[in-house]
Amino acid sequence: MTRHVLAIDFGGTKVALGTAAVDALDARPYTTMRLRTDGAGGALQVVERALTAGRQLLSTPAAVGVSTFGVVRDDVVRLAPNVPGWDGLALPGLLRAEFGDTPVAIDNDVNAGAAAELRWGALRGVDVGLYINLGTGLAAALVAGGRVLPGAHGAAGEIGYLRDSASAPTFADGHAPLEETVSGSALASRGSALLGREVTAAELFDLQTEPGVGELLNEAVDTVSRTIANLCVVLDPQRVVIGGGLMGAAPFILPRVAAALTRSVPFPPQLTTASFVDDAPLIGALAMALAAAR
Amino acid sequence: MTRHVLAIDFGGTKVALGTAAVDALDARPYTTMRLRTDGAGGALQVVERALTAGRQLLSTPAAVGVSTFGVVRDDVVRLAPNVPGWDGLALPGLLRAEFGDTPVAIDNDVNAGAAAELRWGALRGVDVGLYINLGTGLAAALVAGGRVLPGAHGAAGEIGYLRDSASAPTFADGHAPLEETVSGSALASRGSALLGREVTAAELFDLQTEPGVGELLNEAVDTVSRTIANLCVVLDPQRVVIGGGLMGAAPFILPRVAAALTRSVPFPPQLTTASFVDDAPLIGALAMALAAAR
Repeated sequence: MTRHVLAIDFGGTKVALGTAAVDALDARPYTTMRLRTDGAGGALQVVERALTAGRQLLSTPAAVGVSTFGVVRDDVVRLAPNVPGWDGLALPGLLRAEFGDTPVAIDNDVNAGAAAELRWGALRGVDVGLYINLGTGLAAALVAGGRVLPGAHGAAGEIGYLRDSASAPTFADGHAPLEETVSGSALASRGSALLGREVTAAELFDLQTEPGVGELLNEAVDTVSRTIANLCVVLDPQRVVIGGGLMGAAPFILPRVAAALTRSVPFPPQLTTASFVDDAPLIGALAMALAAAR
Repeated sequence: MTRHVLAIDFGGTKVALGTAAVDALDARPYTTMRLRTDGAGGALQVVERALTAGRQLLSTPAAVGVSTFGVVRDDVVRLAPNVPGWDGLALPGLLRAEFGDTPVAIDNDVNAGAAAELRWGALRGVDVGLYINLGTGLAAALVAGGRVLPGAHGAAGEIGYLRDSASAPTFADGHAPLEETVSGSALASRGSALLGREVTAAELFDLQTEPGVGELLNEAVDTVSRTIANLCVVLDPQRVVIGGGLMGAAPFILPRVAAALTRSVPFPPQLTTASFVDDAPLIGALAMALAAAR
């Protein structure tokens, strides 16, 4: 009987689960399931509902891959303010209690997305690469030697905390300066304030004829582009892959990023869109589980 | 008879050579030699004089380590405008022609400095680290898995090309925006213009009572500090090591960098001065040669 692995992606609005055979050759899950995160009920019940669902999908997984928002450090999730109780949650220990000796791999959602691209997508065969997630949040994953670099505290690539001027607010004051300026959620709230009605970041890209919207998007995407170019100056990757929900606006975003790379990077890398968008962290958790099942 | 390795450091003003026994336990060279670079005579004669000196020091090295300014890519030195003919020089081929089958390791001076710190100095035992060179130029080396990350084109860490605003000049226009603002050579020329007489960057730190000098240094060092903090956000290192000629002003620089790390980095790394300053690239070339001799 073919053994299977289990993947769980904890997101701010939904929890996604999937399974795959240990000899799976492509990125298509064998089964999937989705739950509302329902964070208001507390972090523990989110985990418990997910584990119950996992048991329904697969009673004895060969390995488990878990993706979560925030960063995982010293057996605790950090930098995860979105769901009450998630920051400080001892998620790795809860998973060990559930799965015993079964191998469990855990990483944050953006690193998981990069793992999906490395195994099946746009980063396959890439030695030095950069994965950028332009979604509700803003983060990156650094790839070297064909592997995601976790950093010393699991926080490599948390570029939402970058500061590009002396007047930018700081992490110590509770801010994520770049993320608060140009992430999807920042664009949604800046656009909503500008237009006097609620709009999503994705909708904003279709409203460029409205007063001020074009300027807002140009300035924000130029800042993102300059940031990506700076990351390339630092890491010198051979390829940059951009994913995340904002890539619905790829025709607006990609040419600006490409121009910034050509202008500012001594050895401009290849630039491409991610192979996986909506379900990238789940696919990545599957990739992590398959690697752990070896 | 104990076998020895040869190290050559090509610098903009001097070429340094050194030897060490293959079983050397510390960073002290067995012999050293220095030549003026005399770049006006052309790149080739610089290399030939260095190789002649190398032959005098050691006729049959067990391995050779070479450090150079610029970056080494595809058998050619790039991003090396200081000495005429160095940019585009086929240095790796010249070394192969001289040394035949003897192992030769070559890297840029800042990565070599990091290699010295990794083997004998402030980065010993560090898995994820950052080495910053504050000297005439401005550059960094990224360390992960206890090794220097070269990048896809040998240009990782060339932070002189970072741009922190939309109005900054670009690499494509022949500029290194950050290096032109806050490197040692930039401080020297900005300070000289301010004071109406020639001063070095190191001297400038002793002239803070003169009008405008304190402001210039505060602004420049704050920019350097913010840049180092941003690099730590990206890489998430456990330790940052700062070397280079400007570290004569460590009492001015280090507290400002430390404050920026505490303010801006989610998991602030340790911060320390480099173990090697003036001869860091030569010591690093020795470390590279010893590794190649294995």
